Amino acid sequence: MGTQQRIVSGMRPTGKLHIGHYHGVLENWIKIQDSFDCFFFVADWHSLTTEYDNTAGIRTSIHEMVLDWVGFGLDPAKSVVFRQSMVPHHSELNLILSMITPVSWLERNPTYKEMLDNLAAKDLSTFGFLGYPVLMAADIILYKATRVPVGHDQLPHLEITREIARRFNYLYGNVFPEPEAFLTETPKLLGLDGRKMSKSYGNSIYLSDTAEETTKKVLSMMTDPARIRRSDPGDPDVCVAFNLHRIYVPQEKLDEIIPACRNAAIGCVECKKILAECMNERLAPCRSKRAELATRPDFVNDLLQDGSRRASEISDAVMAEVREALKI
Amino acid sequence: MGTQQRIVSGMRPTGKLHIGHYHGVLENWIKIQDSFDCFFFVADWHSLTTEYDNTAGIRTSIHEMVLDWVGFGLDPAKSVVFRQSMVPHHSELNLILSMITPVSWLERNPTYKEMLDNLAAKDLSTFGFLGYPVLMAADIILYKATRVPVGHDQLPHLEITREIARRFNYLYGNVFPEPEAFLTETPKLLGLDGRKMSKSYGNSIYLSDTAEETTKKVLSMMTDPARIRRSDPGDPDVCVAFNLHRIYVPQEKLDEIIPACRNAAIGCVECKKILAECMNERLAPCRSKRAELATRPDFVNDLLQDGSRRASEISDAVMAEVREALKI
Ligand code: SF4
Ligand code: SF4
Repeated sequence: MGTQQRIVSGMRPTGKLHIGHYHGVLENWIKIQDSFDCFFFVADWHSLTTEYDNTAGIRTSIHEMVLDWVGFGLDPAKSVVFRQSMVPHHSELNLILSMITPVSWLERNPTYKEMLDNLAAKDLSTFGFLGYPVLMAADIILYKATRVPVGHDQLPHLEITREIARRFNYLYGNVFPEPEAFLTETPKLLGLDGRKMSKSYGNSIYLSDTAEETTKKVLSMMTDPARIRRSDPGDPDVCVAFNLHRIYVPQEKLDEIIPACRNAAIGCVECKKILAECMNERLAPCRSKRAELATRPDFVNDLLQDGSRRASEISDAVMAEVREALKI
Repeated sequence: MGTQQRIVSGMRPTGKLHIGHYHGVLENWIKIQDSFDCFFFVADWHSLTTEYDNTAGIRTSIHEMVLDWVGFGLDPAKSVVFRQSMVPHHSELNLILSMITPVSWLERNPTYKEMLDNLAAKDLSTFGFLGYPVLMAADIILYKATRVPVGHDQLPHLEITREIARRFNYLYGNVFPEPEAFLTETPKLLGLDGRKMSKSYGNSIYLSDTAEETTKKVLSMMTDPARIRRSDPGDPDVCVAFNLHRIYVPQEKLDEIIPACRNAAIGCVECKKILAECMNERLAPCRSKRAELATRPDFVNDLLQDGSRRASEISDAVMAEVREALKI
C-alpha cells in the first residue's frame, strides 16, 4: 500500500468492562496500536439507538470504560482516543449518507431483525435504530479508515459501510476508501454461570474487580456439570472455568491440570484457586494503573477533549472534501 | 404569552424564485418579520432528500434565492437569515431525534407516499427521504420555535414535529415548546400555461425577470380558453391570467376590466398589457434593489455567514440544554 493503514473502531459505553470485552476487543486494540494509525472512540451516539430511554448512566459508563481502556494498555499517545459526540462531523456525515442509503439496505440487515427479536421487550422500532448502520458507516469513513476490526458476526455491517462508501464515490467522485475487514478472533468467554458473560446477567468478572472479588467469583464459577463429587473424574473440555484457564494459566501448568482433572486427582476448588491466582497476577499491574488513573478527577475528560480535538482535525479536512464533492 | 413568539421557517434552494414562491411564502415572511422573532433559513440539507443525485447547482441556487429574499424585502437586520448546513446542530439534533422517532410515524406521513408517487421517476427510497420530517422537526425545535408558518397541506408535517417535541419532553424533561401552526394563505397562482407554476414546467415568471421578459411572458399567458375570437365574450373567473390581475391590478381598474371582458369590450392582449404594466411597476423597486445586491460579490456569503453565526449562538444554548436533559 505504501501508506500506513488507518483503523477506526468504537465501543459503546456500557460501563466498566468485563474480561470478555477485554479479550474480545480491547486486547486486540492494544495489540494493533503499535503497527497502525488508530482511531478508537466512545460510541455514545450509538448507545442511544438501544438506550434512548435510559441515558442516566452514560457519563459514568464512559468514565469507567475509558479508565479500563487506558489502565489496561491503550495509549492515547499512540492512538487517537475520542468521544463520538464530541466530534460534530459524525452526525453531519450521518445525515449526508442517509440521503444516499436505500431503506432496503437497512431493512435487510440481518442484525437488525435479530436485535429487534432479542430486545423484544424494548421499543426499538425507531428511525435511529433502523439507521445505525448509516451512523456506523459515517463513523468509519469520516476518517477514511482502510481497515476495521470486526468479528465474523459483524461482517454484514461492514458490507453496508462498504456499499455506502461505494455509492458516495459513484455519485460524487472518489473520496472514500472502501474499508476492509480486519478479522479478529474472539475467544469463547463464558460468565460464572456458563451463559454469555454479560452485565445484565450479573455473571461477569470486571477488569476493575479487586483480587479478592476475582477470587471469590472464580471460586463460584461453574465447572464440569457432570463432576458432582470430588471423586468424580472431570473433563476440562466441558468445564466452564477451564475456558479461563486456557487464557490465564501457563501451558506447563495446564499440562498438569488436564490429566489431574480427568483422574480426579485435583479438586475443582484447588483448580480454580490456581486460576484465580494466575488471573490476579496477570491483571494486577493494569488494575493498579487503572486505580491510579481513577484518582485523577480530570483525567478522562482531558483525554477525551484532547483526542476529540485531534479527531476533529482529521474529520474537518475530510468533510471539506465531502462538501466539495457534493458541491454544497 | 408575555414573551415574543419565535418563528422558524426554511426554503429549499431551488434557484431564483418565481412569483408563486413570492406570494406563497416570501411575502408572508416579509410581513411577519416586524412583529415576530424570526429565523429564516436556506434548507440545503433538505434539498439533498430529493436532489442527492443532482447537487451541481446548489451553490448558485442558494445565491439566487437569497438575492431574491433580500431584494424583495427580507431584512437580515430584523431576522436571523442563515444557511442550515452552516449550523452544525441541525444534523446533531436530527440524529438525537431519530433515536426517539418511531419509523411508523414516518411511514404513515401522507406526504411521504404522495411524493414517492409524484417523483416516481426518481429513486427516493432512501433513508434520508423517509426521515425528512425528523430533520424538519430538528430545524424547528432547535430554536425553540413557538410558531411555524405552514399551508394547510403541511399540517401533517407540523404534527410530526409536535409529536417528536412531546416525546422528547416526555423522555428527558421539558425542553421544547410544541410549535403551533401559523396558517398562511397561499393564493392560487398558475403558470403561463395554466398548470401549477413550476421551474420544471418552464411556465414561471421570476422575480428577477426584466420588465421586458415579464411583459413577453404575460402576453403569452393563457386566458379564458373559451375566448377564441376577439369578439367572443370572456370570463375572468376562468381566465388564467386574471389570477395575476387580482394580485397586481388595482381594484378600480379591475372594476372596469371585468365587465369589459364579459362584453368583449376589451381584448386579451390589451388586458394583459395592463397586467404587465402593473406588475412591472410594483416589482421594479425590488428588482433594482436585487440587481444592485447582485453586483456585490460577497454579499450573500457574508450575510449567510453572519446569520449562521447568530443562529449558532441560539442553537448552542439549546443544545447545551439538550445534552443536559439527555445526560450525555
Ligand atoms: S478440576 Fe478444574 S478443569 Fe476440572 S472440572 Fe474442576 S475446575 Fe474444571
Ligand atoms: S380580457 Fe383579460 S380577463 Fe378577460 S379573458 Fe382576456 S385576459 Fe382574461
